[in-house]
Amino acid sequence: MAHLSKNLIGKSALLLVLLEDEINEGYTRTLEQLQWKYCMGKVGSMEPHKVVAAIETAAKKHQLIKPELYRESHALYHAILEAMEGVTRGQIQLGSVQRTVGLRFAIIRGNPYDSPEEGQWIAVAMYGTIGAPIKGLEHEVVGLGINHI
Amino acid sequence: MAHLSKNLIGKSALLLVLLEDEINEGYTRTLEQLQWKYCMGKVGSMEPHKVVAAIETAAKKHQLIKPELYRESHALYHAILEAMEGVTRGQIQLGSVQRTVGLRFAIIRGNPYDSPEEGQWIAVAMYGTIGAPIKGLEHEVVGLGINHI
Amino acid sequence: MAHLSKNLIGKSALLLVLLEDEINEGYTRTLEQLQWKYCMGKVGSMEPHKVVAAIETAAKKHQLIKPELYRESHALYHAILEAMEGVTRGQIQLGSVQRTVGLRFAIIRGNPYDSPEEGQWIAVAMYGTIGAPIKGLEHEVVGLGINHI
Amino acid sequence: MAHLSKNLIGKSALLLVLLEDEINEGYTRTLEQLQWKYCMGKVGSMEPHKVVAAIETAAKKHQLIKPELYRESHALYHAILEAMEGVTRGQIQLGSVQRTVGLRFAIIRGNPYDSPEEGQWIAVAMYGTIGAPIKGLEHEVVGLGINHI
Amino acid sequence: MAHLSKNLIGKSALLLVLLEDEINEGYTRTLEQLQWKYCMGKVGSMEPHKVVAAIETAAKKHQLIKPELYRESHALYHAILEAMEGVTRGQIQLGSVQRTVGLRFAIIRGNPYDSPEEGQWIAVAMYGTIGAPIKGLEHEVVGLGINHI
Amino acid sequence: MAHLSKNLIGKSALLLVLLEDEINEGYTRTLEQLQWKYCMGKVGSMEPHKVVAAIETAAKKHQLIKPELYRESHALYHAILEAMEGVTRGQIQLGSVQRTVGLRFAIIRGNPYDSPEEGQWIAVAMYGTIGAPIKGLEHEVVGLGINHI
Repeated sequence: MAHLSKNLIGKSALLLVLLEDEINEGYTRTLEQLQWKYCMGKVGSMEPHKVVAAIETAAKKHQLIKPELYRESHALYHAILEAMEGVTRGQIQLGSVQRTVGLRFAIIRGNPYDSPEEGQWIAVAMYGTIGAPIKGLEHEVVGLGINHI
Repeated sequence: MAHLSKNLIGKSALLLVLLEDEINEGYTRTLEQLQWKYCMGKVGSMEPHKVVAAIETAAKKHQLIKPELYRESHALYHAILEAMEGVTRGQIQLGSVQRTVGLRFAIIRGNPYDSPEEGQWIAVAMYGTIGAPIKGLEHEVVGLGINHI
Repeated sequence: MAHLSKNLIGKSALLLVLLEDEINEGYTRTLEQLQWKYCMGKVGSMEPHKVVAAIETAAKKHQLIKPELYRESHALYHAILEAMEGVTRGQIQLGSVQRTVGLRFAIIRGNPYDSPEEGQWIAVAMYGTIGAPIKGLEHEVVGLGINHI
Repeated sequence: MAHLSKNLIGKSALLLVLLEDEINEGYTRTLEQLQWKYCMGKVGSMEPHKVVAAIETAAKKHQLIKPELYRESHALYHAILEAMEGVTRGQIQLGSVQRTVGLRFAIIRGNPYDSPEEGQWIAVAMYGTIGAPIKGLEHEVVGLGINHI
Repeated sequence: MAHLSKNLIGKSALLLVLLEDEINEGYTRTLEQLQWKYCMGKVGSMEPHKVVAAIETAAKKHQLIKPELYRESHALYHAILEAMEGVTRGQIQLGSVQRTVGLRFAIIRGNPYDSPEEGQWIAVAMYGTIGAPIKGLEHEVVGLGINHI
Repeated sequence: MAHLSKNLIGKSALLLVLLEDEINEGYTRTLEQLQWKYCMGKVGSMEPHKVVAAIETAAKKHQLIKPELYRESHALYHAILEAMEGVTRGQIQLGSVQRTVGLRFAIIRGNPYDSPEEGQWIAVAMYGTIGAPIKGLEHEVVGLGINHI
């Protein structure tokens, strides 16, 4: 039976975006020992498709997904949209409803279940701010999407 | 102009639910020095209203909100529902679409902006698992809702 | 070309639910002179399907729709659901997300366009309160659904 | 315990947009006697963000909110979006799904509960038409959003 | 009492978009014998409003609806949006969330119930692919909207 | 690059639910020659979770997914929910908004892309009626969900 291992892919992705500068070398070394691929990035935009594109580009550049394989793009795309649901809370809209986001994101690809048969999964975490297109008029947001790949 | 202080209410609530046992005394002392009220709890359910009720009960019990004041209940309620959007990603439904959640939650009430005029805000963070009503067939989820109070 | 007549079906339905006791005889006489059928009612519930059923029952009882004609039930049903979107603002859920409504509703059937070819339309207006299942912890809500019949 | 006073902020905002020209001096004098601030305006657009911006601008111009205070902008923003849910019924989209709105709006800021501790709330009402981008192919819509401020 | 006849308007519209080239003359002759009006078309776009417009234009060109009659435009519009819900599954957004569609569509207007009193209904079927704006990174989608007219 | 093969998994699943009795032996033999697993079933309910459960049970019984493998359950679950979006068009709710469904469903597991690297995908098709809980007051609906597995 499937069982989440003690190495939690979602928690790991969330800590990467939350702690960022506070992440010590020991932490990322753990990810590497697990042979989990990961990458991080930033994106600020009033257009959801630019958030999607920034994350897809980062994933391809760091070889977390094979660009020519649709099943991997499809897995990542749905993980991104699910994370965006947490960020937007109701409608995946930004500028069209007069708001903007500034986000850090982390993507991890690894095997988060004890059973090797469960194979690889992908986690997309986002953390940052959402608000009016005026500096300061904003609060924090978070999102996490997880999918089998 | 509003400006998020370096003491981030959303990040703090997320770290409380993510790190839980790893949270050291120094961390919670910071929250206390800031005079931010907080509490934590757990809830597992197939019914969204039980998640809402568990968090409302915890908030009242730890005096984060005044039960008889509607403006405070109203602020908390919307923060809970926004966090549930991140957890459910699309429809705030659990058992009615054959899934269940096991969540840790943290609530923080404090003043997250540099300007004292911005007053108090409330953050509700949730982290745990969502999945089929069969142990193990689940993955991680997160949610965060923030509101002025 | 279609053109809304000065007799506005949506506004009329809204005034019926908003003014209720203040509605004078002159007002309802106007509706009767227009040969617009209308009825009013009240419903309080934590279950959306009870709101739907209360309005359907009132419409049939006052002969605003023919019960055995699906095209009329279908028109009314969608008008009800659209009004519920305004009341619930995001998810047509009540008790399942720990909230309840107390509503007055009005249904009007008439011809709101200058051109007789536009035929009959139905308007469903709702006004009342939504809130926690505790008396007083509530605020006002409104909804309006309009459909061709 | 919270208790809605007989001066209903939502109903008042709705009557302002519904009756407009029929509103007599006595009515607005009541709002002034209550020391409730209010303003009214009009907006027609195929872009939801222009509706949001028009209402935010009116609220600032008539000093219903302090522009530099994020908690007030935040309260107003969510009240606007909730009113837009009633207007759009399902997806806060206009031109992107080939439709347009012509709306009157009213904003009221006041204390709608008997208990002074409940403080100030804001109501945003919208009433007008939605339809195809062709004059006449349209029907009435309404929306109301209420938030503590 | 209403009863769906053996001539199913939704199934017929779906077979038109699914089988297209395989549709034999006998099949379309059946639609003509029933005196059901129908038309077919194709549209590829990253903008939902272009899908809506393409179908509205086809319906008017083939005289399935009278362009100057709002009740007919209104019926068709809601049938189109309902079909788009099946195609987009969650948010009626395409390019704004970095995806595109290539669709065949069919529209049928007819009387699908045994009782003549049920009158005419309209069915809009869509079938094609959705995916990244890169050829091949796509999978199939379907949608069906049905409304009384 | 990914390329949909001429054997379309979504179209095949849709034809299975649409044609049912008209499906000839030649058609299912094609699926068998492709070594695509498939099964069909029926479900009528006012509760979405019963639709989900009926399809999951059928998929396990006919060995389309391995019950103990979460990645396969996860893939199927999301395909089911996406198909339900087409059936419910807006909110995945049935009895809670006073409506019921009677559905045929088909599930196919196969490799729908020319490139063998794209591996296996799962398609869930649903077709039937939705309506009031009164026989006859109903119209047709369709839904299709496709996911990599």
